[in-house]
Amino acid sequence: MILMNDQFLSREQANVDMEDRGYQFGDGIYEVVRVYHGASFKMDEHLTRLARSAKEIRLTLPMSLGEIKEKIVELIKRNNLKDGIVYFQVTRGTAPRIHQFPSNTTSVLTAYTKEMERPMKDLLHGAKVVTTEDIRWLRCDIKSLNLLGNVLAKQYAVENNAKEAIQIRGDIVTEGSSSNFFIVKDGSLLTHPANHFILKGITRDVVEVLATELGLPFVEKEFKLEDVYQADEAFLSGSTTEITPVTQVNDHKISEQPGPITKKLQEAFEKLI
Amino acid sequence: MILMNDQFLSREQANVDMEDRGYQFGDGIYEVVRVYHGASFKMDEHLTRLARSAKEIRLTLPMSLGEIKEKIVELIKRNNLKDGIVYFQVTRGTAPRIHQFPSNTTSVLTAYTKEMERPMKDLLHGAKVVTTEDIRWLRCDIKSLNLLGNVLAKQYAVENNAKEAIQIRGDIVTEGSSSNFFIVKDGSLLTHPANHFILKGITRDVVEVLATELGLPFVEKEFKLEDVYQADEAFLSGSTTEITPVTQVNDHKISEQPGPITKKLQEAFEKLI
Repeated sequence: MILMNDQFLSREQANVDMEDRGYQFGDGIYEVVRVYHGASFKMDEHLTRLARSAKEIRLTLPMSLGEIKEKIVELIKRNNLKDGIVYFQVTRGTAPRIHQFPSNTTSVLTAYTKEMERPMKDLLHGAKVVTTEDIRWLRCDIKSLNLLGNVLAKQYAVENNAKEAIQIRGDIVTEGSSSNFFIVKDGSLLTHPANHFILKGITRDVVEVLATELGLPFVEKEFKLEDVYQADEAFLSGSTTEITPVTQVNDHKISEQPGPITKKLQEAFEKLI
Repeated sequence: MILMNDQFLSREQANVDMEDRGYQFGDGIYEVVRVYHGASFKMDEHLTRLARSAKEIRLTLPMSLGEIKEKIVELIKRNNLKDGIVYFQVTRGTAPRIHQFPSNTTSVLTAYTKEMERPMKDLLHGAKVVTTEDIRWLRCDIKSLNLLGNVLAKQYAVENNAKEAIQIRGDIVTEGSSSNFFIVKDGSLLTHPANHFILKGITRDVVEVLATELGLPFVEKEFKLEDVYQADEAFLSGSTTEITPVTQVNDHKISEQPGPITKKLQEAFEKLI
């Protein structure tokens, strides 16, 4: 079953109008929430971010956050989802095509669930990433449906046998195509400041909390590719990525095995979920 | 009637799958072609650009350009469209959501027509534009469905009683949210070079041809807002915008009336269509 606004429909009924602004402009926002053992993880945080994204592009949500939550939790139940994700998006709705916001549209919410295993191999052994130019727009802090830059970056990763493409704007390392990126140097965590150039990940926030609990400095500061090559450890964070150690960046080996600080964070994350 | 791939359907049948990548990633491209007196204007040039956009994001068109043209011309006929536009877009198709290109998808073509009058008032009297920061991605040369930056810019224009928002990246004037932008200085036309920062408009190309015929230098060169304020004339070009004189930029009056060179170009354009 899928959710479309306040209705639960079968997958075949889940059709969208060709003049939905999501389809013509990518005029909408989304979230992906991890579900473990039938329970959503950090749902409220995702909903709060959805509301922020909506506000930034002045999109009116079709119902309250509480109602969205209720419907999505019901969708998880109806689909009997144990381990996987729930994806939901809201577009500005259907209207004759004009660039500016149309009057009298109703936003369209769609949501579905998907079974998904945790990326155990990468979590245990670490992953390779590659770097690519960050060609995205200047409002990456909005979790919008304008994802073509991310799509092209991820495709580049896949073609280079990497899990993720770390994007670099000018000479500053920003984030992955669907994850945040951290390096560890002399016991401190370094990651790009949460400004317009990155999406402030929910798992990134979790890492901040866990780091503080573990007494690890969490430093938001710009850094360059050369800093990555000189890092002691590196990892990705994301709702489905969790905390994935990075052992190789391009042709450069960071470490043979996931680093000790990354592992500490993974252990703390494991307890949390 | 609308066109969906090779089928002509009624508007109500024109539904799109919620996992169409156009809906989830803006993973697609589009064109808008002007129709005058039942005949499309510069259709081949638009199709050539569609093919280029497709190549740049490695999207396979669902049929040949010749077949697309044939179908779209038939759509114009079936809808008995005299004056208006035909809009068509192609997405990478429907697949379970992953960022990278999915295997085994079939691209989805959708097209519809719309009656539209020419913007006679603006063409005769000129229009006001405002300026705003260019926050779009770095591949504006691709006519993609990732249009949220353009949407926000146009909305800013509308709220400031302007026809268009001219975008400025750093301190360089790039283009409008749905049009190219020109200034005229000492008898020469100046416009942003056709690189990754702007969409190379079909009407922009027409302006180049007309300028050459009229003996007007067509200069592709970066310029700043202060150059705009010191310009003798300014205008917009676009498929529905045609050649629209700009008489005011923000609070700065360029001229009381459309300038003489802009008018010459408009006259030549009028003969062409």
